[in-house]
Amino acid sequence: MGGTALPPRGDFATLTDEDVAFFREVLEGTRARDDAGSRDTAKTSSSSSSVRKVRVDAGSLATANEDWMKKYRGRSTVLLLPSTTAEVSAVLKHCNERRLAVVPQGGNTGLVGGGVPVHDEVIVNVRSLNAVVSVDASAGVVVAEAGVVLEDLESAVNAHGLTIPLDLGAKGKCQIGGNVSTNAGGLRLVRYGSLRGTVLGLEIVLADGRVLDLLKTLRKDNTGYDLKQLFIGAEGTLGIITKVALVAPPKPNAVGVLFAGCSSFKNAVAAMRLAKQILGGSLSAFEFLDRASLEVVLRELKGTSDPLPLHKSPFYVVCEVAETGGEEASAARKKARRRLETFAALLSRRGLVTASLVGKNEKQAFALWNLRERVSLALKHAGATYKYDLSLPTESMYDLVDALRARVARRVTEGDVEETNSEKKRFDFSSVSVMGYGHLGDGNLHLNVSSPTGYHPALLKLIEPFVYEFTANARGSVSAEHGVGAMKPNELSYSKPENAIEIMRGVKAMLDPRGILNPYKVLPASTPPRARL
Amino acid sequence: MGGTALPPRGDFATLTDEDVAFFREVLEGTRARDDAGSRDTAKTSSSSSSVRKVRVDAGSLATANEDWMKKYRGRSTVLLLPSTTAEVSAVLKHCNERRLAVVPQGGNTGLVGGGVPVHDEVIVNVRSLNAVVSVDASAGVVVAEAGVVLEDLESAVNAHGLTIPLDLGAKGKCQIGGNVSTNAGGLRLVRYGSLRGTVLGLEIVLADGRVLDLLKTLRKDNTGYDLKQLFIGAEGTLGIITKVALVAPPKPNAVGVLFAGCSSFKNAVAAMRLAKQILGGSLSAFEFLDRASLEVVLRELKGTSDPLPLHKSPFYVVCEVAETGGEEASAARKKARRRLETFAALLSRRGLVTASLVGKNEKQAFALWNLRERVSLALKHAGATYKYDLSLPTESMYDLVDALRARVARRVTEGDVEETNSEKKRFDFSSVSVMGYGHLGDGNLHLNVSSPTGYHPALLKLIEPFVYEFTANARGSVSAEHGVGAMKPNELSYSKPENAIEIMRGVKAMLDPRGILNPYKVLPASTPPRARL
Repeated sequence: MGGTALPPRGDFATLTDEDVAFFREVLEGTRARDDAGSRDTAKTSSSSSSVRKVRVDAGSLATANEDWMKKYRGRSTVLLLPSTTAEVSAVLKHCNERRLAVVPQGGNTGLVGGGVPVHDEVIVNVRSLNAVVSVDASAGVVVAEAGVVLEDLESAVNAHGLTIPLDLGAKGKCQIGGNVSTNAGGLRLVRYGSLRGTVLGLEIVLADGRVLDLLKTLRKDNTGYDLKQLFIGAEGTLGIITKVALVAPPKPNAVGVLFAGCSSFKNAVAAMRLAKQILGGSLSAFEFLDRASLEVVLRELKGTSDPLPLHKSPFYVVCEVAETGGEEASAARKKARRRLETFAALLSRRGLVTASLVGKNEKQAFALWNLRERVSLALKHAGATYKYDLSLPTESMYDLVDALRARVARRVTEGDVEETNSEKKRFDFSSVSVMGYGHLGDGNLHLNVSSPTGYHPALLKLIEPFVYEFTANARGSVSAEHGVGAMKPNELSYSKPENAIEIMRGVKAMLDPRGILNPYKVLPASTPPRARL
Repeated sequence: MGGTALPPRGDFATLTDEDVAFFREVLEGTRARDDAGSRDTAKTSSSSSSVRKVRVDAGSLATANEDWMKKYRGRSTVLLLPSTTAEVSAVLKHCNERRLAVVPQGGNTGLVGGGVPVHDEVIVNVRSLNAVVSVDASAGVVVAEAGVVLEDLESAVNAHGLTIPLDLGAKGKCQIGGNVSTNAGGLRLVRYGSLRGTVLGLEIVLADGRVLDLLKTLRKDNTGYDLKQLFIGAEGTLGIITKVALVAPPKPNAVGVLFAGCSSFKNAVAAMRLAKQILGGSLSAFEFLDRASLEVVLRELKGTSDPLPLHKSPFYVVCEVAETGGEEASAARKKARRRLETFAALLSRRGLVTASLVGKNEKQAFALWNLRERVSLALKHAGATYKYDLSLPTESMYDLVDALRARVARRVTEGDVEETNSEKKRFDFSSVSVMGYGHLGDGNLHLNVSSPTGYHPALLKLIEPFVYEFTANARGSVSAEHGVGAMKPNELSYSKPENAIEIMRGVKAMLDPRGILNPYKVLPASTPPRARL
C-alpha cells in the first residue's frame, strides 16, 4: 500500500466457534462439522468443495482476504458462501445481533480495497447466488442474482438478441452485484448511460437481515424516494445486493473500431467532440491512451503490435460505433466500417489525427480494442502501480499527467531526495513512469504511476496529496468510477462538502445502526483532516 | 377532487405579521410596508409587481393556491419569490425555526397537487431564480437556476448547438427545478434516459436553511452515496432545489415523425419493439394513443385533422427519429424521412400497421406530434378528467383500459346505480369515456377517464381502487412519471413495500426533522390502510 496507515479495528465482536457452528447450521444444514472437513475439501475436489458454504480453510481464506492487485489484505477467519437471499438474510441477522463486522464480496476485482476485509470481518461472498432469474426479450429486461459474472450475464442475454449496458475489462470475473454496488462505469457509458439509469430494480438484504424488495422491472416509477439509488455505489456499506433488474438493450448487429493517433491532447478532445456530434446515437465508446500507456502494453503483453508504427503519436483515441438495424451481420459490419472510414476522413481533413486505422474485421477490431482495454493488465505485469481514477474537466484533463510527470522529472534531475529519512534516499525516481488513459467521452482519466521497483513512501508523497488537491481545485472527483473503498475515505472531502458527508453518515446510521457492514470503507472514520470544500 | 378527503392540518405554526415583516426584510430589504402596497402592485403593472417578492394580495394568492387543473386548492396567505439561493436559505431557516409549513412551487404544472398548498403553507415559488448560469458547449453541460422555464432552457442551449434531454407538453411553463424535483419523464426518455442519469449536479437548500452544494458538472463521480438522487423526484419534501447541472447532448440536425395506425394494441407494441431494434440510437420517441384519444383531440382542438381519415384504427403510434451528423439541416431532414419511410415499409410488410404517414416537412411533423402531445390539453377542454399515470408490463398495458371501459359499460347497461345514496343515482355513466395513450417505449400508460358532466363519487368509486389494484397485481407503478403529490400518498403501498416506506420516512425525518417541507405530500401520514406488498 506504500504507506497508508491501517484504521484501528472497530469495537466489534470476535468470531467464535459458536458463530461458525451457527453459520454451518444455516448454510449447510449441519449442526457440527470439524474444520478438518473443510480443509480436506479445499485440498481435494472443487465439486465437493462447492457444497461447503462455510469456509475456514487457509486456501479459501488466503484468496478471499486479499484483493487481486495484492495491495489490500485482511485477516478474516471465515468465508461464507450463501446461495439464497434467505441465507444472506439469516447470516446478516446473526452478525448484526452479535455485532460481527461483515465485508460483502463479489468477484473481488475492485481497485480500492472495498471488497476485502481490513481486519477480521466475516467475508460474505455472493458468488453462489448465480442464477439468471429471467430474461424478457421483448421488454429488454434481465433479472439476475448478484453473483452472476458479467460476461456470463452478457452471454445469457446475447442468446435473446440483447446486450448488457455495461462492459469493463474485468468482465470475466466481476459480478453484476458488485458492479451495481460500486456503480461501475466502464466502456459503454457513452452509449447507454450510467447504472443509475439502467438499473431498474434491486433486492437488498439490510444490515439487520430484513429483505428490501425494490426489484421492479419498470422503466419509470415515481412512487416516493428512489431508495435503490442509495445502494448503487454504496460499496456494500448499506446492505448486500442479492438481485438486480437491468435494462438489456437490443444487441448491436455489429461494431466497428477506429484507432487513431493525435499530435496533442487538445486534438484528441476535439476528435471526441466531433464523434459525439457526427456519430450521435451510433457512438458506443470513445477512449484515449497516451504513448506511454501504449508502450507498456506493447512491452508487457505478447501478441500486441503498434497498429500505426510509422506514425508514433503522443496520444491515441479508440472510437467504437455500434450498428443496429435489420441487416445481416456482414452488411452491418460493412456499414460500421464505412461510417468510421468517413469519420476518419473528416478527422484527417480537420487535422485532428496523424493517422488512423479502422478494423477490417472482427479480429482486427478486437485487437485494436485490446490495446486500450488491457493497459491495466499490462501495468500489473510491469510491477507496482499507483492508480488514480479521476473525473476532471475534459479539456484540461491531461494537464495533471503533465504536472505529475514534471514532478517526477524534477526528482530525477535533483538526484537523491534531500530528506533525512534514509529509506527515502534509496528510492530511484528514474524508473518511474507516469501515464494517462481512460474514458475520454466521460471526462474520466485513469492516471497511473508505474514503479517497477515497487511501492515507496517517497513516491507516494510525491503523488499525494498533489493529485487530490489538483482534482479538488478543478472541482473534479477523486473517484470517477472505482469508488472509495478502503483507499480513499479520507479523501472524500476533496470532492464532497462536509455537510454532504454528514448526511451520508446519517444515511449509514439509519440503515446500519450498528455499523457492521463494510466498516472502514467509504466514509471517513471521523471528520477528515482536511475539509476542502 | 371527486371525494378524496383532505388530510388534517399538521401541528404547524400559523403565519403572523411578524413573519411577513421578516420575509419583507430578507427579500425586499424593507422593514415595513403595508399590504395595500402589494395589492395595488398586483393590480397595476407587472414590471413593478416583479420587484415585490413577498405577495399577500388576493390575485397572486389565488393563482398560487390553485393547480392548473383546478383540482387542488390551498389557502396560503403568503407567496414568496426569492431570487437567490441565499434568500431561499434565509426563508427556510426562519420557517424551520418557527415551524411554519412550506410548499415549494415552480411552474405549477404538476398533475398530482404536489406544488400547491393543502392548508395554509407558505408558498416559496422559485420562478425568480431564473438565470442560465453557464452553457459549456464543448462538454455539453448546462447549469441553470431552478426557475428557468424548460422551453427557455432549450432555447438557451440550442444557441450552442445543444439540446435538453427532456421535453414535455408543459415545456412553455414548467421549470427545470420542478422537472428535477418531480423526476419528470416526458417524450425524450427513450433516447436520453431518465433525469437520474442526465442530472449531473444539484444545489439544494435543506429544510433548516443549510445549502447543500452537490453542483458538480462531471459525468462520473463515485465519491460516496449519490445524495442528489434523493432530491430527484422527492417533490420538494426533502429540500428546495435551487440550481441544476444537466447533460445537454448535441442537438439533432433534424427530426422525422411517423404516424401510423394499428389494428391492435399487440401490433402497436410489436412496432415499438421493431423500432428499438431497427432504429437503435436514432429513435428518439415512441408514443401511442387510442382512437378515443385521437377523437377528443380532433373534437376539442381547432386546426387538427385526422391524418389517416381513410384508415380509422383503434390505435395509433407516433415514432420520432433524430438525425445527428454533419449534414445541412435539409439533407438531414431528408435522411430522417427516408429512414422512416423505409421503416414504415417494413412495418407494413410485417402487417403491423394499417396505414402510415411520414411528415413531409417540419410543419407536418409538428402537426403529427401535436396529435399525441395535446391529448392532455384536449381532455382539459372536454371537462373533468380522472388522470392515472401508470407503469405496467408493456404487452398487457392496454388490458387495464379495456377492463375499465367494461366496468363503465356495465354501469351504462345497468342504468341507474342501485345504491341508496341518492346523489349517486343521478350520475349518468353514458357520458363517460375511457381512453389510453402514453409513452409506449417506456411502458408508461396515461389512463384518462373523461367525464364531461363533472367529477362524481360514484365514478371515482368505479375507478378506484380498481385501477390501483390492477396495477399492483401486475407489479406496476401507480405513478410512472407524475409523482405522488397530494393525490397518492395513500396509494404508495400499492407500489412500494412497507419497509421501503419506513426507510423513506427515515430519510424524511433525517433531512427535515420538523417536517416543514411540503407536508401532506408523497409519504402517507401514517401506516396506510392497505398494505399491498
